[in-house]
This record gives sequence, C-alpha cells and structure tokens, in this order.
Amino acid sequence: MDTLQIVIGYMAAGLTTFSFLPQVIKVWRTRSTRDVSLSMFLVLCCGVSLWLAYGLMLGDWPMILANAMTLALASTVVYFKIRHG
Amino acid sequence: MDTLQIVIGYMAAGLTTFSFLPQVIKVWRTRSTRDVSLSMFLVLCCGVSLWLAYGLMLGDWPMILANAMTLALASTVVYFKIRHG
Repeated sequence: MDTLQIVIGYMAAGLTTFSFLPQVIKVWRTRSTRDVSLSMFLVLCCGVSLWLAYGLMLGDWPMILANAMTLALASTVVYFKIRHG
Repeated sequence: MDTLQIVIGYMAAGLTTFSFLPQVIKVWRTRSTRDVSLSMFLVLCCGVSLWLAYGLMLGDWPMILANAMTLALASTVVYFKIRHG
C-alpha cells in the first residue's frame, strides 16, 4: 500500500469518527433533539460496537480507537435524545 | 479469518450503512431539520467520500458499495438541512 492510500485511509477514519462531534456539541448546547432520529443513533451504536469487536478480533488498533471514539460520541447523542426527547 | 469474523464484519458494515436510513425518513416526512447538525453531515460526507476513494484504490467491493450507499443517505440529509434549515 502506498503512502497516498495510507494518508487517505487515516483522513477517512478521522473525518468519519469526528463528524459526530458537532452533533454532540449541538445537542449539548441546545438540549433539543426533536429532529434527531433515535433509531439512527441506536442502530449506529450497534454497528459501531460490532466494528469495535471486529477490530479487537483483528488486533487492529486504529480500528479499535476510531470505533471506541465514535461509540462514545454516538452514545452521548442517544443519552440526550432519551433524556430530552 | 474465520466465519464468525466475516459475519461480524458484514453485520457491522450493514448496520452502520443503513443506520442513516431512519434519519433520512424522519427529515423526509417532517421537513424539519433544526436539531440536525449540518457540520456533522458535511464532515461525514467528506469522510465517507474518502472511504469510497480508499475502497476504489483497494478494489474492495463491499467497501465501495457500503460507502456509496452511506454517501447517498448522508447527502440526502444535507440536502434537506440546506433546503429546510
């Protein structure tokens, strides 16, 4: 795998992982989650948990760290959605 | 790689890809996107586009298909957010 592929892979992982941060900040500030889909974030948490399990099985640390971070962010949105509706 | 790992990998890919469908359905029905973070879905689209490029570079069809589908769903949310605020 050449350097360009490695750079693109890490940028992809970084962007998809941290994309959830602005949504967490938004619901944290506004406490308003009416338009956010609970199903989306619940299914996402299940999927990301499986990616985490997959990473653990492969012993792939970038996959483990990226999915642990995504799970933390997506779970925070679920918490606010359940708490504030 | 054993069968359990393959099953977990495909389930993970399926769940994270289709998790965005309930959010698309929700904004489609309500036309209300106030609580949805535009930054989240824009950064997600950039990240998923890079995953798609990565998949194309590797010639990995499951990665190409899953990310093309995710990009279509996430872009639809961006469209509704820009159109309806």
